[in-house]
Amino acid sequence: MFKVKISGIGKAVGSKVVESKSLEKLMDVNQGWIKKATGIYSRYYVDYENGENALTLGTEAAKKAIENSDISLEDIDCIIGANGSPMQALPCAASLYQREIGLSKSGIPCFDVDSTCYSFGNALIVAANLIDKEIYKNILIVSADAPSRTLDLTDNEVRALFGDGAAAAVVTKASENETSRIHHFKMHTYSDGADHTCVKGLGSLRYPEYPETSPKDYTFQMNGKEIFKFAVRLLPKFFEEFFAVSPIQKTDLKYIIPHQTSRHGIDIFRKYGFTDEQIASHIETHGNCISASIPMLLHDVIKEEKIKRGDSILLFGTSAGLSLGCISLTY
Amino acid sequence: MFKVKISGIGKAVGSKVVESKSLEKLMDVNQGWIKKATGIYSRYYVDYENGENALTLGTEAAKKAIENSDISLEDIDCIIGANGSPMQALPCAASLYQREIGLSKSGIPCFDVDSTCYSFGNALIVAANLIDKEIYKNILIVSADAPSRTLDLTDNEVRALFGDGAAAAVVTKASENETSRIHHFKMHTYSDGADHTCVKGLGSLRYPEYPETSPKDYTFQMNGKEIFKFAVRLLPKFFEEFFAVSPIQKTDLKYIIPHQTSRHGIDIFRKYGFTDEQIASHIETHGNCISASIPMLLHDVIKEEKIKRGDSILLFGTSAGLSLGCISLTY
Repeated sequence: MFKVKISGIGKAVGSKVVESKSLEKLMDVNQGWIKKATGIYSRYYVDYENGENALTLGTEAAKKAIENSDISLEDIDCIIGANGSPMQALPCAASLYQREIGLSKSGIPCFDVDSTCYSFGNALIVAANLIDKEIYKNILIVSADAPSRTLDLTDNEVRALFGDGAAAAVVTKASENETSRIHHFKMHTYSDGADHTCVKGLGSLRYPEYPETSPKDYTFQMNGKEIFKFAVRLLPKFFEEFFAVSPIQKTDLKYIIPHQTSRHGIDIFRKYGFTDEQIASHIETHGNCISASIPMLLHDVIKEEKIKRGDSILLFGTSAGLSLGCISLTY
Repeated sequence: MFKVKISGIGKAVGSKVVESKSLEKLMDVNQGWIKKATGIYSRYYVDYENGENALTLGTEAAKKAIENSDISLEDIDCIIGANGSPMQALPCAASLYQREIGLSKSGIPCFDVDSTCYSFGNALIVAANLIDKEIYKNILIVSADAPSRTLDLTDNEVRALFGDGAAAAVVTKASENETSRIHHFKMHTYSDGADHTCVKGLGSLRYPEYPETSPKDYTFQMNGKEIFKFAVRLLPKFFEEFFAVSPIQKTDLKYIIPHQTSRHGIDIFRKYGFTDEQIASHIETHGNCISASIPMLLHDVIKEEKIKRGDSILLFGTSAGLSLGCISLTY
């Protein structure tokens, strides 16, 4: 489909390690409740008071991705911001990353692609398509989310789940003698479920200054049970349709890199014909980092040498919308 | 470059006509000040109390665009939200449009492309590239912004400038015997100017509940003078580079459809070799409608039969970032 490769990848996490047991004390629930409910032992939070935030994490990840690639900063010719939640209303996140990595006078185009937790997957397809058409050569994609200071503290499920992190990737054309490529992708959106995962405020529909807007409108609201039912209902047909077309089949995959929704939401892939060995996860130590989860986990799988060039993987995401997205690629 | 066409276009505006003279009274400035400073006689505001907002405008425009096209609702196979300012933090605007136009069970993919005032131009290129690769057939792009209730009322320039509106387009592959196509595009971003046009709040960097966040952070802040200087400095080289490659030259163009920044910001194209007859504008009656301005004006130029199939035009945008963007196409 697209003869491109991820030529560099970088990751950054908040500098504070927050163990579930300390959150459990704050939440006044039994010790062990979070681990049992979500599979999360600890997650990272930004040290906001000392200047850490989604932008600093995204910038750190972007710099590392470029360092890790075979190109130099000046070779980047497009930046796509792929955050899952806004850092500021405008300009787009990509512009802010451009400035922070030192390309503010370069003129290279910056825009964002947004599909919440699946923004990285969508941005990867948009980038691959642009590179395939020879419009750009080296596209930097940055996903960063730091929800820790914006959570609804009355919602234990949400509070247990999220962590702060970022990852970035440099996407480049693969040469003829390289096996890297994107084989197939698919995305489905069912807005029947748009209200199951949402932040209804922070925009013109429920603007902070409107008298009818409440602080709850700024926070992430999630109906975990409904989303899970939704996914379980849609996934069999989704995978069936995907693998009916993808030249890479389940048994060809070294790993599925799923969005880190919860332990339960990750284990479910066993039901769909993936083996335990194929299902990658770092939720135990990272929690759910929204858009950054998929590329952060991809980073770890690469860095831990669990995959090498020539190995095939599946990126899989669920996102607010509600959407399902899937990409088969050879790294 | 891309053998695609805009096969349908629709537009919607707020139902309240707000004349500059009534704003002048509220702003306590001389009668005629707004018209002189911005070229705007009136603009449309949503009737928020009666349920109008960016989402209802975008939905109306989307329905009209589909009606206006040669396809039916069920033929839409992807929706791209291309708003300039957020309606809500998540999910993406495209999901909300999907639900409102009656495709909530369709599964068709939804995502947003954001580069503020130039979101429509960027979304058009992303859509054209996806159609060119035969990934999707009929993509709906929706741009809607309703800033009227979110403006900094202490800033007369901002208050004078903005209106509420929406436009949507259906983008489809052009057949062999059709002349429609996108010939060339270019985008440049200079984040040196990222703070000249911004809303620093409404995200995790300046979240409403942080003690250090002020209501001013939610509002659009603009340094009009600096942006103008910026554009004037960059535009000659930008156009020179663009027309060095575009197969469509200035003299081939029936119209340039510029973002409706201000009368001054539109008239400036005379300096760059466009004739008065070539420069389209409806700023006098619409003001600046952020991302919706370019497709709204394109809609009007088509509806007023100023262009017909086979005529070539230039879409031109400036946006927060700061970015410049340009697309030459044959309608």
